[in-house]
Amino acid sequence: MNSSINSKYIQPKTKEIDVEEYVHKILSGDRVFLSKAITLTESTKEEHREKAGEIVEKCLPFSGKSIRIGITGIPGVGKSTFIDNFGAFLVDKGKKLAVLAIDPSSVKTGGSILGDKTRMEKLTLLDEVYVRPSPSGGNLGGVAKSTHEAIILCEAAGFDTIFVETVGVGQSEIVVNYLVDFFLLLIIAGAGDELQGIKRGIMEMADAVLINKADGENLEKSKNAKAEFTKAMHYFSESDSGWSSKVEICSATTGFNLDKVWDIIKNYETYSKANNYFNKKREEQNAYWLYQTIEDELKNKFYHNNKVIDLIKKIEKEVKSNMISSFEAGKKIIKIFTQNNK
Amino acid sequence: MNSSINSKYIQPKTKEIDVEEYVHKILSGDRVFLSKAITLTESTKEEHREKAGEIVEKCLPFSGKSIRIGITGIPGVGKSTFIDNFGAFLVDKGKKLAVLAIDPSSVKTGGSILGDKTRMEKLTLLDEVYVRPSPSGGNLGGVAKSTHEAIILCEAAGFDTIFVETVGVGQSEIVVNYLVDFFLLLIIAGAGDELQGIKRGIMEMADAVLINKADGENLEKSKNAKAEFTKAMHYFSESDSGWSSKVEICSATTGFNLDKVWDIIKNYETYSKANNYFNKKREEQNAYWLYQTIEDELKNKFYHNNKVIDLIKKIEKEVKSNMISSFEAGKKIIKIFTQNNK
Repeated sequence: MNSSINSKYIQPKTKEIDVEEYVHKILSGDRVFLSKAITLTESTKEEHREKAGEIVEKCLPFSGKSIRIGITGIPGVGKSTFIDNFGAFLVDKGKKLAVLAIDPSSVKTGGSILGDKTRMEKLTLLDEVYVRPSPSGGNLGGVAKSTHEAIILCEAAGFDTIFVETVGVGQSEIVVNYLVDFFLLLIIAGAGDELQGIKRGIMEMADAVLINKADGENLEKSKNAKAEFTKAMHYFSESDSGWSSKVEICSATTGFNLDKVWDIIKNYETYSKANNYFNKKREEQNAYWLYQTIEDELKNKFYHNNKVIDLIKKIEKEVKSNMISSFEAGKKIIKIFTQNNK
Repeated sequence: MNSSINSKYIQPKTKEIDVEEYVHKILSGDRVFLSKAITLTESTKEEHREKAGEIVEKCLPFSGKSIRIGITGIPGVGKSTFIDNFGAFLVDKGKKLAVLAIDPSSVKTGGSILGDKTRMEKLTLLDEVYVRPSPSGGNLGGVAKSTHEAIILCEAAGFDTIFVETVGVGQSEIVVNYLVDFFLLLIIAGAGDELQGIKRGIMEMADAVLINKADGENLEKSKNAKAEFTKAMHYFSESDSGWSSKVEICSATTGFNLDKVWDIIKNYETYSKANNYFNKKREEQNAYWLYQTIEDELKNKFYHNNKVIDLIKKIEKEVKSNMISSFEAGKKIIKIFTQNNK
């Protein structure tokens, strides 16, 4: 720690904080430093991500002790209200909660434009909760990777429950499977129910399907939907965990059945820890991010190579107009890259 | 051509056929050589794929003039019968048809074990039809890539209509989108309709949804399903082509409405050629396979590097047991690879 303190005195105007200081602050639960470190993981600058990598590396031994819950559902199912009230319910139970979001489209669709402070009124007032909006822009793979790092950082900062929220836009639900222990799908009863599933194709991935807004005159419809979806679940092949997905109704607004939702998650945790699937899944996730990193770095080196930059657009044009086959063109530019790289 | 003829006389026992001879035979419509060339594209041997690449390259100027139709649907929808009878219907109209299949799971699930000769009784008797079973084993990306090459070879051999059949196992329907002009989804009416869609998540991708087995007492149900799915289509966002997906009922067994199916495909072709989407999609597909080739080759070089082979399992183990973060481990091994590669 000395070096960082010294450097502060020697260069009082620099904002550069060193890795040790980041780690120290994060481990002590400092949210400002937690946020800054997460920002580094999201940076497009190589040097920032280098630094982020070192911080994550040093936080790693202090991570892993939370339950990581993925929450997804298309706009209109009441996801924000659910996270707000279910989160507050968990804080009441003594939990420390971090809410992360994956929404690479947030700038384009305006999905997060309202701001998470408006979306989650209760949570933003609670000291036990850390809400982190999705990084805007960037590609899904990049956003997901930095979310994996953010999870490690949040755990090191003492959060024992992690929500990873996705907006229902297809691919992001698939990638969330590489981030969380438990996958929760929110839907609502009513016209076009089946379509919510069809458009997503993620019913099979869900560890629990929650039919939200089961209140007032919607309650009966929700009960029917529960019966329908429970039946539907039988068509799916058994999951790797051996866990059979649960279907439940709830109302985030009234708080109805939120305790049952928590019971389901706790049961899953007990179940999957008993058969060791919990650990196995996390190990596989780690391996997944290793190979993702490798492949990203390989591509990174390739597409930032000057010779490649000079040629790639020309070759793409040739391929599009059938002057050369995709395969020959690919091999050709790889050869140029390899020679150039030597 | 001389060199190949010469080499035959000089080395009478060699089975090595040169690229020129392959191309010549394929262009003359020789199916034995077409099959052999496709086998080369599927090979795991580098030298075979090199040769395949050269053959494809030389066939490229003679390709592209067919309509490429993707046909998908889960087992039980009558896909084989549909392909058999719809194919025969097209041959009657003077078409030359090649049927390719994508089924990376064919060995495991036994999906193709019955053999395509049993599955497509009519087509295998027709001179105008070439049926090529899916390469068994291998990964989906590899199978799809060799299918892209097979399409070029079949077109060069004079086939003007290409079917690409996938078994409904999820990802293969997505990759088929990078192979074909028109995407046909077969379903059947009845219990669990919506589930066929839910499990696949590909309704949105379909240019036409065909409700098959619309005969006998199933006809009424099929008509109802048509109404339901037509309604459902409105929920989907507009496709890039501007084409609104069609829903139709048919019976492959009785031949009912097969002419309408063909009308839909012809209409799509006219429509998408008029607004230039047809060409644009093919151009984008070419670019897609360029970048796939590049990334495959990059990974290929990495994972076949001796230093990497020595280290990767050890590093994966360390990552799984949280001894090192995925990101640091990834960067570390890339560094070793890059140094080793110099």
